[in-house]
Amino acid sequence: MTIAVIGVGLIGGSMALTLKEKGLVNRVIGVDANPEHAKQAVELGLVDECATLEKAVDESDIVLLATPIGAAEKLLPVILDRVQQQVVFDVGSTKNSICAAIVNHPNRKRFVATHPMWGTENSGPAAAVKDAFAKKATVICNKEESDADAVALVEKIYGLLNMHILYMNAADHDMHVAYISHISHITSFALANTVLEKEREEDAIFELASGGFESTVRLAKSNPDMWVPIFMQNRDNVLDVLNELIVQLRKFKSCLEKENYTYLEELIKKANGIRRILK
Amino acid sequence: MTIAVIGVGLIGGSMALTLKEKGLVNRVIGVDANPEHAKQAVELGLVDECATLEKAVDESDIVLLATPIGAAEKLLPVILDRVQQQVVFDVGSTKNSICAAIVNHPNRKRFVATHPMWGTENSGPAAAVKDAFAKKATVICNKEESDADAVALVEKIYGLLNMHILYMNAADHDMHVAYISHISHITSFALANTVLEKEREEDAIFELASGGFESTVRLAKSNPDMWVPIFMQNRDNVLDVLNELIVQLRKFKSCLEKENYTYLEELIKKANGIRRILK
Repeated sequence: MTIAVIGVGLIGGSMALTLKEKGLVNRVIGVDANPEHAKQAVELGLVDECATLEKAVDESDIVLLATPIGAAEKLLPVILDRVQQQVVFDVGSTKNSICAAIVNHPNRKRFVATHPMWGTENSGPAAAVKDAFAKKATVICNKEESDADAVALVEKIYGLLNMHILYMNAADHDMHVAYISHISHITSFALANTVLEKEREEDAIFELASGGFESTVRLAKSNPDMWVPIFMQNRDNVLDVLNELIVQLRKFKSCLEKENYTYLEELIKKANGIRRILK
Repeated sequence: MTIAVIGVGLIGGSMALTLKEKGLVNRVIGVDANPEHAKQAVELGLVDECATLEKAVDESDIVLLATPIGAAEKLLPVILDRVQQQVVFDVGSTKNSICAAIVNHPNRKRFVATHPMWGTENSGPAAAVKDAFAKKATVICNKEESDADAVALVEKIYGLLNMHILYMNAADHDMHVAYISHISHITSFALANTVLEKEREEDAIFELASGGFESTVRLAKSNPDMWVPIFMQNRDNVLDVLNELIVQLRKFKSCLEKENYTYLEELIKKANGIRRILK
């Protein structure tokens, strides 16, 4: 089979590598708005060739839409206009908006909305790696709006990637990811800006930075081209969670201001409850 | 040589393991206020025997003070009252308060204030591991207040642990660690409480939680017995940083509320500057 990878970056590139290695596809056509990335994707062996969106869609059996989500929402109707029997799936971090954008499209059923829960703080073709995705969760949203054969092919793909598939509706998905992904990025960005704003002795931070700092601030390296559209599309959920986070931080602030260390201990013990969720 | 390890937990236990393996010490005497931990430390081979504080100090050449910092500050004068030529060093996360507590002690010069920048979210003897510390930074504070031979022995110890030694005064140390360690813990605790407060579908989080969430929330598992005293002792610095963090988070909130995505992009690009510090 032939796969068209629209957006040959971290996710599209990594997925193409694995699907070819596993033998599901024997030809990978890349499409990228950035000519430099397209060239790099060929050089790195992520794709066999690059082509226009139209040619790539026409000559493929599977279309993987892996651009940032703002672009994905614009490209999806154009892609669906052209598909015959192809299966189209996306991998974006929000699902409500993209599903709404094509809900009445005559070829809606050829599209499967998905979100593999894997990524790194890096982006672009050079960030793509083999053996990504394995043992992580992936979500398929609004399954009932897709053809059974399209869902089956996407399930097969995630099976080859060794991912655990969850099914939920797009609205629930977007609410959950605000908690478990989007807010972590905002706290990392804010923490990085706090350090960059106030701590002038960068050498000292660099020397001292231990594992704890690195793990909480790592996400602050993430690309705005990916994240601004995510925050736009998931604005209401992210605002809800962000408001609650500020409330929670104020509790810590108030404990320190009032030197109420009994309540501080309670807050920390409560937070330790996260062990129930994260082993 | 004989080492007395006061507080046989993650740090004390891990350090004893390595120092014995490297041949610097041939006898390790443990002291722990928790009889269960003392017993466990012997069973796990972290220490050769357990004893009272007095006996351990009297029979050792080196005293490693590795209790939570509140207890350390109380124990240090008692230990210094007994020392002859022993070298005493601590490994606490704040340095100002402990240095102030013994500044006028007649045996002050036998004490070296240190802070190895390594740890995990786990605690107690069972959390101790071999090969901890390596390639991380450690800080020696107020070096000029210690005897040269005491500093030299502590430097030798950190050399054996394969750590990179930095020197600074206690006040600067405490300000820097508020940024690179203490605030990361507060954001993790607050993030965990946000999720536990608002997100009722714990199964969904557990299934979905990806690397990003895990790395930002991991620290929320940390023990309040260790962290409450740290926040008490470093209250002013932590409050400064926490206030700035809330200011930074409010900027993100305001961008979302006003749908000012241009400024949101600027904030994220600024945060990306952390790449200068964390490679």
